[in-house]
Amino acid sequence: MKTYLDCIPCFFRQALQAARLAEADEDTQRQILVMLGRQLADFSLDSTPPEMGQILYSLVKNQVGQDPFKEIKEKSNRYALDLYPELKNRVKNSSKPLRVAVRLAIAGNVIDYGVPRRFELKEEIEEVLSSEYGIFQFKELIQSLNRVEKVLYLADNAGEIVFDRILIEELLREFKPELTVAVRGAPVINDATLTDARQVGLDKLCRVVSNGSDAPGTLLNHCSPEFLNMYQTADLVISKGQGNFESLWGEKKNIFFLFKIKCDVVARHIGGREGDIVLLHD
Amino acid sequence: MKTYLDCIPCFFRQALQAARLAEADEDTQRQILVMLGRQLADFSLDSTPPEMGQILYSLVKNQVGQDPFKEIKEKSNRYALDLYPELKNRVKNSSKPLRVAVRLAIAGNVIDYGVPRRFELKEEIEEVLSSEYGIFQFKELIQSLNRVEKVLYLADNAGEIVFDRILIEELLREFKPELTVAVRGAPVINDATLTDARQVGLDKLCRVVSNGSDAPGTLLNHCSPEFLNMYQTADLVISKGQGNFESLWGEKKNIFFLFKIKCDVVARHIGGREGDIVLLHD
Repeated sequence: MKTYLDCIPCFFRQALQAARLAEADEDTQRQILVMLGRQLADFSLDSTPPEMGQILYSLVKNQVGQDPFKEIKEKSNRYALDLYPELKNRVKNSSKPLRVAVRLAIAGNVIDYGVPRRFELKEEIEEVLSSEYGIFQFKELIQSLNRVEKVLYLADNAGEIVFDRILIEELLREFKPELTVAVRGAPVINDATLTDARQVGLDKLCRVVSNGSDAPGTLLNHCSPEFLNMYQTADLVISKGQGNFESLWGEKKNIFFLFKIKCDVVARHIGGREGDIVLLHD
Repeated sequence: MKTYLDCIPCFFRQALQAARLAEADEDTQRQILVMLGRQLADFSLDSTPPEMGQILYSLVKNQVGQDPFKEIKEKSNRYALDLYPELKNRVKNSSKPLRVAVRLAIAGNVIDYGVPRRFELKEEIEEVLSSEYGIFQFKELIQSLNRVEKVLYLADNAGEIVFDRILIEELLREFKPELTVAVRGAPVINDATLTDARQVGLDKLCRVVSNGSDAPGTLLNHCSPEFLNMYQTADLVISKGQGNFESLWGEKKNIFFLFKIKCDVVARHIGGREGDIVLLHD
């Protein structure tokens, strides 16, 4: 997906939010916005939004120091792990466990910035489990899963990967694919890396690889050869989160996108509404 | 009021909105955002938001040509004039005509960008007339009006000045002050200028002056000596709109601010909520 002009004010909003979460002082916050302003001229609208995301989070990292979101991510993981037994039970006790697991995995995508509050996440889970979906191509996903062998699962955020774990456990149980989870190659915002995958035990379930890039999405031309090989040979890609959607939408590949629409630009792009929960086949 | 870091993403949003309303093509819209980005480094947070507003609207004007909002303003005025007889009747038939006129003047502040839609404005009027106010220092305003002679009324937007006219007619009828209305010295967004004041017949009621500045607010250090003299000798200033509030809040002067809170930054600054209707004494 290309960058829309409406994304530009949002880049500044995100940079400010990231700088604050990283506990930059006010002068540093301002400096980050000023530097972002200077870089605008060099940024092409043909790039995808996560490319600017990569630039703006590297500005924050350079100003504040390595991985300012480390603690936030650890907390998100721990917090989601506390919920794991309860969520796992819901899936087990359901007559449609896979459908519930898919919905839970999308519910987990609400964990975006910062540590989610317990009641907010609980509310979100109930809403996602009970609500109508704007776009929910569940049947197509099942059909595809029945046909394929190699599945590549692109994770999104820390915390959220506990919800992914539940879906991955269901996928392995029902379809027994050769499943690999890819995470970011280096810390960017609260996106999951190998450290997070290990913290929530994903590495005990299946192969977990780094994509070799520190973009808050999957920019194929930035990813490692190892990851690219895996991407190219995968029969089916399950892509979590809006960042992965923004960078991969339009690629010639069998991809299912699972995410919550977090802005009006993406909503208009796919004909949905902000806040919609989507399971969308490219 | 100083500029908050949260205002910066909003400057980009406003610049884009203004460029689109001015019917700039997409390349020009992008160019305006890029130029704004370059200017960020030179902009002090000790300045008030309308100072950046002045910069960003001059960027739009320079790229698109003089007064890109001329037609929008004429339409807004005509449209509000169509409502005038009905609104005037509501004031006349009320047991509290001044209170209704004040509320209507604040309701008119909803006319911000572009031509308002008939049903939206009608809805807004009903809402403002019937709703509770967050901050509504009406008694203090009446007490002050009873004591003073010279009143300076700072207008805000085209269209809205028809609503101001109704309030001004009530003020003249009830208190007979020496009342002057000040408008912007040159076109900026849809802010009212002398042309608009004449179009809605304000000049038939009282003295109307230009403030000598093209900022979307009242930046005293940019205003003409004639206006400043009027400001200094006024016993009471009635200030319409958030732009005038942002530039004059904190001044040592007897000012009543009438506006609708249009952003969270101002809401937090005065302890209100976004969307609140306020009549606030400095």
